[in-house]
Amino acid sequence: MARNGWMRGLGIFVLCGVTHPAMAAAQEPALNLMPRPAVAQAGSGSLRVDSSFTLALSGHSEPRLDRAAERFLRQLSRQAALPVAPKPSKGAKATLVIQTDHASKGIQEVSEDESYTLEVSPAGAKLTAPNPLGAMHGLQTFLQLVDVSPGGFAAPAVTIRDKPRFPWRGLMIDSARHFIPLDVIRRNLDGMEAVKMNVFHWHLSENQGFRVESKKFPKLHEQGSDGLYYTQEEIREVLAYARDRGIRVVPEFDLPGHSTAWFVGHPELASSPGPYEIERRWGIFDPAIDPTNEKTYKFLDQFIGEMAKLFPDQFFHVGGDEVNGKQWDANPKIQEFMKAHGIKNNQALQSYFNKRLQPMVAKHGKSMIGWDEVLDPSLPKDITIQSWRGPASLAQAAKQGYRGILSNGYYLDLGWSAARHYAVDPMSGDAANLAPEEKQRILGGESCMWSEYVNPENVDSRIWPRNAAIAERLWSPQEVTDAASMYSRLDFISARLEWVGLTHKSYSPKMLHRIAGAASPAEFAALRNLADVVEPVKDYTREQTAPAHPTSATPMNRLVDAVPLESDAGRRFVELVDQFVAGSCRDAASEAQLRSQFTLWRDNDAKLQPLAQRSFLVQEIAGRSQDLSALGSAGLSALDAIVKGQPASDSWKAQQLASIDGAKKPNAQLLLIPAPAVQKLMEAGASGGACVARN
Amino acid sequence: MARNGWMRGLGIFVLCGVTHPAMAAAQEPALNLMPRPAVAQAGSGSLRVDSSFTLALSGHSEPRLDRAAERFLRQLSRQAALPVAPKPSKGAKATLVIQTDHASKGIQEVSEDESYTLEVSPAGAKLTAPNPLGAMHGLQTFLQLVDVSPGGFAAPAVTIRDKPRFPWRGLMIDSARHFIPLDVIRRNLDGMEAVKMNVFHWHLSENQGFRVESKKFPKLHEQGSDGLYYTQEEIREVLAYARDRGIRVVPEFDLPGHSTAWFVGHPELASSPGPYEIERRWGIFDPAIDPTNEKTYKFLDQFIGEMAKLFPDQFFHVGGDEVNGKQWDANPKIQEFMKAHGIKNNQALQSYFNKRLQPMVAKHGKSMIGWDEVLDPSLPKDITIQSWRGPASLAQAAKQGYRGILSNGYYLDLGWSAARHYAVDPMSGDAANLAPEEKQRILGGESCMWSEYVNPENVDSRIWPRNAAIAERLWSPQEVTDAASMYSRLDFISARLEWVGLTHKSYSPKMLHRIAGAASPAEFAALRNLADVVEPVKDYTREQTAPAHPTSATPMNRLVDAVPLESDAGRRFVELVDQFVAGSCRDAASEAQLRSQFTLWRDNDAKLQPLAQRSFLVQEIAGRSQDLSALGSAGLSALDAIVKGQPASDSWKAQQLASIDGAKKPNAQLLLIPAPAVQKLMEAGASGGACVARN
Repeated sequence: MARNGWMRGLGIFVLCGVTHPAMAAAQEPALNLMPRPAVAQAGSGSLRVDSSFTLALSGHSEPRLDRAAERFLRQLSRQAALPVAPKPSKGAKATLVIQTDHASKGIQEVSEDESYTLEVSPAGAKLTAPNPLGAMHGLQTFLQLVDVSPGGFAAPAVTIRDKPRFPWRGLMIDSARHFIPLDVIRRNLDGMEAVKMNVFHWHLSENQGFRVESKKFPKLHEQGSDGLYYTQEEIREVLAYARDRGIRVVPEFDLPGHSTAWFVGHPELASSPGPYEIERRWGIFDPAIDPTNEKTYKFLDQFIGEMAKLFPDQFFHVGGDEVNGKQWDANPKIQEFMKAHGIKNNQALQSYFNKRLQPMVAKHGKSMIGWDEVLDPSLPKDITIQSWRGPASLAQAAKQGYRGILSNGYYLDLGWSAARHYAVDPMSGDAANLAPEEKQRILGGESCMWSEYVNPENVDSRIWPRNAAIAERLWSPQEVTDAASMYSRLDFISARLEWVGLTHKSYSPKMLHRIAGAASPAEFAALRNLADVVEPVKDYTREQTAPAHPTSATPMNRLVDAVPLESDAGRRFVELVDQFVAGSCRDAASEAQLRSQFTLWRDNDAKLQPLAQRSFLVQEIAGRSQDLSALGSAGLSALDAIVKGQPASDSWKAQQLASIDGAKKPNAQLLLIPAPAVQKLMEAGASGGACVARN
Repeated sequence: MARNGWMRGLGIFVLCGVTHPAMAAAQEPALNLMPRPAVAQAGSGSLRVDSSFTLALSGHSEPRLDRAAERFLRQLSRQAALPVAPKPSKGAKATLVIQTDHASKGIQEVSEDESYTLEVSPAGAKLTAPNPLGAMHGLQTFLQLVDVSPGGFAAPAVTIRDKPRFPWRGLMIDSARHFIPLDVIRRNLDGMEAVKMNVFHWHLSENQGFRVESKKFPKLHEQGSDGLYYTQEEIREVLAYARDRGIRVVPEFDLPGHSTAWFVGHPELASSPGPYEIERRWGIFDPAIDPTNEKTYKFLDQFIGEMAKLFPDQFFHVGGDEVNGKQWDANPKIQEFMKAHGIKNNQALQSYFNKRLQPMVAKHGKSMIGWDEVLDPSLPKDITIQSWRGPASLAQAAKQGYRGILSNGYYLDLGWSAARHYAVDPMSGDAANLAPEEKQRILGGESCMWSEYVNPENVDSRIWPRNAAIAERLWSPQEVTDAASMYSRLDFISARLEWVGLTHKSYSPKMLHRIAGAASPAEFAALRNLADVVEPVKDYTREQTAPAHPTSATPMNRLVDAVPLESDAGRRFVELVDQFVAGSCRDAASEAQLRSQFTLWRDNDAKLQPLAQRSFLVQEIAGRSQDLSALGSAGLSALDAIVKGQPASDSWKAQQLASIDGAKKPNAQLLLIPAPAVQKLMEAGASGGACVARN
């Protein structure tokens, strides 16, 4: 998985603007569910949910279903502030009755049935599922259905028959570049449960840290983590927590590259003698394991054996990405080995390594999964490919008989809009043309939260709410693609996710207060107005545009750290301008709304500048504030031109363009989202085009 | 402590409006400290605080000071998002050096020295204190000093010599009426530490619940708590947590009244045979312990012995308030006993009870404290009076030789403004005229958070930020009374308190989302605009104005539960109108600001009403929304009249008054804070008075 720009030459990463795909006008969806169920049929009336609500379990039960039922009751009680009975009963009489047929597997499997049927009528609700996994998904659906109504809290009458489109719906969190504390992991598992994701891929080792306690090789975590690692006891707690939520946990130990932190305590594993220190910078680095040393394999056999016992899942992720080969090139012993064994190049050497690794993983009862680079036709078909390179390589793997999951297009750290992630489908591109049995091998996808620029404060906001759109892509039928409906439901689900315990909305005011310090209320409001319409720079530009070379010790206290990766206000403004222009600029209410917005922006800078004199964190964005002010003036001028209804002069246009151009450029690593839309409005006003006919 | 209206006949509680005392125009305080230190002398320049910051301990040290130092470093790192070294060193070289002279007491005492001196210069900072208590207070002062500056995070150069005015600065939390979970208790202790409060008074038993595990009498918590109680192990953890923060914990077991929950498991203690159930309603109830039964005292001796061991503090609170005497009147055996012992009335019977209780408390090594009602001149001078009745009874106690603390005027649940609490001084009224040695007996005060209408979600917002103003009253010199300065600093401290972990600001959007359900962004904004300028009804009117008789099972999901008890926006609006009118309505900028505010209010209702059709929780406040809209229109009309500059007609005035009058009345248990100020503006416009001269 490319972590910086060195592979950009391959043309795989296209730097994209921040405009969103054209969207149909927002329409109120019948049900505020995310992900959308496979089939939903509206009934009439609704089921009242008040403090007399009861839950009963019938048929098969097991402890985790009992716990899920109690968790459901706590969550229902919390989201409605209703004191409902905290325990489910056994039997067939209750407001909501769960009927489960049989047990789920002791260790959750990829192929396990996750389907359920939920019938809600004014008289009661029934949730039927073959096994507890489906029952747990159905409970989450019910929680989303319950909302305020004219007569109290209620769930609309509906019959839902639901099952996932893909069996592998994952979120990867990189706990290695920045350590992510357990409470953050847990609340993200809660979020995953809410949107029916079922795989937590835990990236646990990197150049910047080795994050798991190893009892066999304690120097790994003792010397490779700055003391920031998970004990095996803590890992087991997370595993139980995840299993309780129907979530498999796939650990990743990235090899042979991305491995500097291993070598701090074990330099003998590396291809160059060392000594090594924990890496503090970001990027691709030279250290790589020595695949020609038999001791490497002895070590790995024992290590994998230990970890295979700790992590029960069938899959074991070995990384395998982005080896630059420099240490291999520079080591004469390795070069000699390659010659002796007819290994032609570094790619072939990595294949050799994987061919040694795979049987080891299999011996310990696991199925190997790795990033694109591990793909080699000589490996057994048991391995699974995680594609960060794109749909083409995913399709290629499937064609060759390998199972695969898609992560290309789902990198949460790149700052894409929810709509852009939403448009990425594992079955698109080359995959669309695969034969049915090849398509079967595409198991699903995983969103990825790489952690160079996140910390425990803002990581939730980098994952959510956009991750819910990816969750829907992987669960819902392929034809569920309307971005406007997605955004409308996402607004609702996003607020709900804060009830679940995530902090993706509430973190931001706190970070803004840090930036503002002892600001007056008016100054703080001005900062918030600016923060509302900016987004961090996108894709892989964060490092190259940084004011100082970023490392793992760089404070994350700037506005770029404090604003969400997608601006809701920015998106709505763009939609408003699009609609206004599409309607020949005739809509008076929209015009008034735009005018009021532009006036606020124009006047905002004067309110913020005094604070810029006192806070270095505001000083950094003083230019952005001026740009927003310029956008406000240009917007007002454009509206005036539209009202006039005559083609504007070239000099006017040039003048407006100049002031918009500054706003369009990134500054302080921030993009001003409204800038292109203001330009669109200005051109509509200047052209004497559609907007002329308004009078 | 009066929990409902039955004592209102005594004239002790005066229903007050929500206007604030006249305030001087806000002036920027030199230092954003709360509480204000006794003496502060500004230096020149500032001390830069960046990731090279270090802390050293010299002189005496003890484990809790080490822990306080580590906690300080974590908090500094968190509030600035700076990766500072996580451990302090020993010695005299560091950015901040703490010099402590000697140990603090093993069990914190009321009279312990809490003073410290903090010298900050551009070269470094030195914190000197006689013992760790002062050092811990000084660390909190330093944390408040660190803020954004033009060159990075910095603390201004200053020399502070600080000590508290009163030795007893407490917060009482009622964990009995609504159970308050441990994490909420802990974060409130963190908040107390931040504002230098040093007594946590824990109200642990009530009619509605008995909240402590008793190993001697397990039926107390098993049958009296619905399972919602603290284990002794949990209590010990809280005690250690509090001690680490320089906070004493005074437990309260309220007797002989307020005791229904005791009798569920132990009806034999009551004055009527029972059986008893946990009380679900609010108010004063009949059940009272039987003070004529010798078994009562055997029981209490054992119980107090057990609790005296659990809680190390020197003080033991026995409640003693609000016994209505009905069970005593109705019990012939008790009547007989009174006759036989020459006990004339119920007050005398309670005195008898206290005279039996006090030596028992003393025997177990504790000093008895109780509410006003325990005061009886025949009791030894060792007891302490907590005054909920007012300064007169406090002064009376001091005159009679008893120590006392003031809580009257500091009841956080009554919804008073911070300024109103701030104006209450333990040394005012009769106390001002006490002799010096009598004044010495007034130890300080305690804010009280009674919990009829709070739950874990909103309790922080009922305590903070107003509690910080009370903390300042009890710490800072008596002459620190400027409310404008207090509010300016409170804004800053309030944001800081969220960094400490409190949720008094962040809870509100979540509760508004529950009320709004699947609202559009515009609808949600309209709800927020209304929420911003309302406050819950004040004093003891909450129960009598409730739509249904409130109990402990009443959901707390309405707007009255979701808004803070003091509206910042409302207060600022009132200030704006006051300043505008005081300036003869000449200030154009203020006029524009008012006009924009009124326009927003006028148009807000149309945006909110569609949501009222869908949400019963919005339906309840639809009338308030219309009232706000009417205020907006009236305000605009008033501004127009002011611009005209001529006396308005009586009919105009009558019409305006009618629409403002509706807004002035409580509705949905909410007050519209701007209403009186809009009336003031209208009268200024109508009168042809000062505002006429504007042109």
